[in-house]
Amino acid sequence: MRTGVLVTGSVPGEAAAILSGYDVYEVGASEDVVGSCEVLMAWPSRVEAGLIGKMTSLRMVQSLSAGVDALPLAAIPDTVEVFSNAGAYTEPVAEHAWGLLLGLAKGVQTRKQRTIPRKLRGRTLLVVGAGEIGSEVAMLGKSLQMRIIGVSRSFKKPELYDARHHPSDLKNVIGSADAVVLSLPLTKQTRDLIDYDTLARCGQNVLVVNVGRGETVVEEDLIRWLKERPGSRYATDVFWKREGKEVFDTLAWELPNFGGTLHNSGVPLGETLTVPFVRAAQNVRRFLETGEAANRVDLADYL
Amino acid sequence: MRTGVLVTGSVPGEAAAILSGYDVYEVGASEDVVGSCEVLMAWPSRVEAGLIGKMTSLRMVQSLSAGVDALPLAAIPDTVEVFSNAGAYTEPVAEHAWGLLLGLAKGVQTRKQRTIPRKLRGRTLLVVGAGEIGSEVAMLGKSLQMRIIGVSRSFKKPELYDARHHPSDLKNVIGSADAVVLSLPLTKQTRDLIDYDTLARCGQNVLVVNVGRGETVVEEDLIRWLKERPGSRYATDVFWKREGKEVFDTLAWELPNFGGTLHNSGVPLGETLTVPFVRAAQNVRRFLETGEAANRVDLADYL
Repeated sequence: MRTGVLVTGSVPGEAAAILSGYDVYEVGASEDVVGSCEVLMAWPSRVEAGLIGKMTSLRMVQSLSAGVDALPLAAIPDTVEVFSNAGAYTEPVAEHAWGLLLGLAKGVQTRKQRTIPRKLRGRTLLVVGAGEIGSEVAMLGKSLQMRIIGVSRSFKKPELYDARHHPSDLKNVIGSADAVVLSLPLTKQTRDLIDYDTLARCGQNVLVVNVGRGETVVEEDLIRWLKERPGSRYATDVFWKREGKEVFDTLAWELPNFGGTLHNSGVPLGETLTVPFVRAAQNVRRFLETGEAANRVDLADYL
Repeated sequence: MRTGVLVTGSVPGEAAAILSGYDVYEVGASEDVVGSCEVLMAWPSRVEAGLIGKMTSLRMVQSLSAGVDALPLAAIPDTVEVFSNAGAYTEPVAEHAWGLLLGLAKGVQTRKQRTIPRKLRGRTLLVVGAGEIGSEVAMLGKSLQMRIIGVSRSFKKPELYDARHHPSDLKNVIGSADAVVLSLPLTKQTRDLIDYDTLARCGQNVLVVNVGRGETVVEEDLIRWLKERPGSRYATDVFWKREGKEVFDTLAWELPNFGGTLHNSGVPLGETLTVPFVRAAQNVRRFLETGEAANRVDLADYL
């Protein structure tokens, strides 16, 4: 009998070929099939806690999203290994971060109203969360001859940064930044990290972009700060959850110095669809062949 | 008696220091003073043809703007040399071009409406007008690993381009571009260069940005093309003149695939004010000391 892989939807051709040595099923298969599958490859928000309980042979959960925060992590037994899809969205999300940042700097969003543009060249960029996306954001900043500061638990490409700091130093260094890009996963440590006290330490005319997770920023603190600091601007691709679901409504839209896109930076439509599936499928195959795989998540960061 | 320099407004300190060996006057000075000045350092749109007639000692006109197209060029005698301020706005305008291009690619302008983003990395960027701004735009494109094509009469940094073409080849090469940045001065040759026939040769999903001059694109042809090609997008910082004055009203704003900023890319406010004045003042001083200066304009390109 071949190993079974359960997926929260259909698998595009290129990724399906990578999994051709296994039996691939979609969620909704019979209880016997679900109970026999050793791998769940999933869009986290589509996984209900009940499904995990039925997967009695489960050994691996492979996220199709970059993050795993939307998985029902508390329902996953200790014996199951959980893997993120970090790196699968690096290029489009880093481009997106720069689109939001230059959009803020140049007033691209405020059509029919003339704004004074900010020049970024030569200024200081703070990257908070120096994983794959943060590193790519930093690299683009270097090509604009910006000074790059990083705040992160670990640095994927430490050579990109003019200065590197531990997250505990965030409040001490944020004030030196002209632009801040948040590219953090949502964990116990990063939830509500950007609160009023942190924002208040920013310079008067800072530009802040968020391409990580909405909940790393305290919504009401952000709104208070944007009202108090009309020269500061915030643009985001990620929003806050209501009842477990990310919704794009927020009172922040009423502020002239708030802008954003509706979580489309790495949206798996069209051209960006293939890469996340292929990378996830490669990781699943590696796990099943070798017992090891990339991007293993430490559940202690989340629970 | 010291050489006189007439200016269309006050000169900021750093630039005034460069001109300290000359008598600097503002437009509105007495007829005697105006008649004695050998240099006019000017915002082109503030120069009336009548002023030129009164400047009987005039030898040099130095534009404070990048372009000279708004000067009353027909009123300037052959004996007077005219200089643009090319290069004075390179960094902010190139950043701006990238803000508009990434804005188009990522849907930054369409707040509260989800769009499918376009990835730029690995795609083909066509730079039309490969002067200082175009070269800087190309350089940023290279850092996104784009393939760079240039169409220009001359190339400031030819090594940046994977392929270089003469303007007569524009219609043959524009179809291979995923993104087009127009950074052209407005001359006899470039006016109405981007007409319907040229636009129709673009790919179905092209992104076009204009940071040169509005009139290099035929307004009604652009509107027709944007209506016919909903997958194509156009963002501009430069608009069309009505009765000699650039105005930001155009029917194009009603189209969902048109966007822009109101000619603020190099707007001489705040941080970008100093550089254009300093560069213009340096060029004036060089001319008065040596008889030569940078960025001399061939009036045959305009008249």
